[in-house]
Amino acid sequence: MIEKVNCAKKAIEFIEDGMVIGLGSGTTVRVFVEMLAEKVREGLDVAVIPSSIDSHMLAAERGLTVMSLLECPEPDLCVDGADQVDSEFNLIKGGGGALTREKIVASASKKFYVIVDESKMVERLNMPVPVEILEFAYGFVNRKIGEMGYALKLREGKGKLRPVISDNGNLIADVDAGVIENPEDLERELKIPGIVENGIFLAEMVNGVIVGKKDGAEVLKR
Amino acid sequence: MIEKVNCAKKAIEFIEDGMVIGLGSGTTVRVFVEMLAEKVREGLDVAVIPSSIDSHMLAAERGLTVMSLLECPEPDLCVDGADQVDSEFNLIKGGGGALTREKIVASASKKFYVIVDESKMVERLNMPVPVEILEFAYGFVNRKIGEMGYALKLREGKGKLRPVISDNGNLIADVDAGVIENPEDLERELKIPGIVENGIFLAEMVNGVIVGKKDGAEVLKR
Repeated sequence: MIEKVNCAKKAIEFIEDGMVIGLGSGTTVRVFVEMLAEKVREGLDVAVIPSSIDSHMLAAERGLTVMSLLECPEPDLCVDGADQVDSEFNLIKGGGGALTREKIVASASKKFYVIVDESKMVERLNMPVPVEILEFAYGFVNRKIGEMGYALKLREGKGKLRPVISDNGNLIADVDAGVIENPEDLERELKIPGIVENGIFLAEMVNGVIVGKKDGAEVLKR
Repeated sequence: MIEKVNCAKKAIEFIEDGMVIGLGSGTTVRVFVEMLAEKVREGLDVAVIPSSIDSHMLAAERGLTVMSLLECPEPDLCVDGADQVDSEFNLIKGGGGALTREKIVASASKKFYVIVDESKMVERLNMPVPVEILEFAYGFVNRKIGEMGYALKLREGKGKLRPVISDNGNLIADVDAGVIENPEDLERELKIPGIVENGIFLAEMVNGVIVGKKDGAEVLKR
């Protein structure tokens, strides 16, 4: 937990008065939101665009000014966590199922900073890639992913209840492609009709990675 | 109308006993469904996978056996119309807003036959390309399409009521890219986070085009 606090604290340093901030999801982002709310109470003037219902609820509870991409099509900075970050800054995101909106907000923003604790840093991405799938397409996508040599697993919720439904009303599943040698190729390969979005965020989107450690935080830039 | 009838009549010739048929949408498909229902009443044994609520309703009304991609992840044949077909068999689809499910069913099927009347055949695609967009992403997608040098127009319904909502609950809009010199490039370019699907169907998906004329129908193959 101290890693997440150190990480969020460092991310706060990049926030300037008047900014519109794209807000990701997940535990590290929650710590960041708490700190941001404190700064706002102290007089900082910012607005946020949350990328999940969960983050939206937290932002509203904490009294932050919430906007959407309609009012602000180009946020100044997006701050979000990741499930894995490889040595070139490619990411896997979507452990919480919010990958589609997260990818939209990160893509829309002028800059994208990833906040993670040390445990998320890997040499190569190697966890199953979350995907959001239209229910209508599931049978086809499942067959197609199998033909590509990967395994698709429908996401289960608490008590093994499935399916897990995304904020957009679609299915969430995970594509096990083993160790991902080439994230660009896989990201493109997963653009199948019926897959709304996949959880590979390519390094070209990322402006910086803030890594939280026990004794502070390190800012890595490309 | 006689063109549509001639076209549908020719398409019926490709239907074999035991087939699962992916069913598109639109006026020519409706004529095809009426003829198919007649064949079924005469003893033909087929099932259909409709690619829109509209086609699903018609199929149910006519007593056709309806399946989904869960029961049949690989239909034998998809029959669907198109708004434009170019000289290489690239298509624009989605005038009716059903592009996403249509692309899913066409992609899933072993073969894809397009049924159109002569008026849909063009040298180069030149109408605005329908896209399905997550509401959450609209502000970003609108900005991005503008930056690409194209114009995005939100689809209006009867009485100029907007937005038009797709079967999947998302927005429908049209991207005016003028005359489309390279459909492959534009199709790839439109894969922006928040765009669920676009209405360019590349020639590689198409096995045949059945062109209805006043005096019959012509089957064009690649």
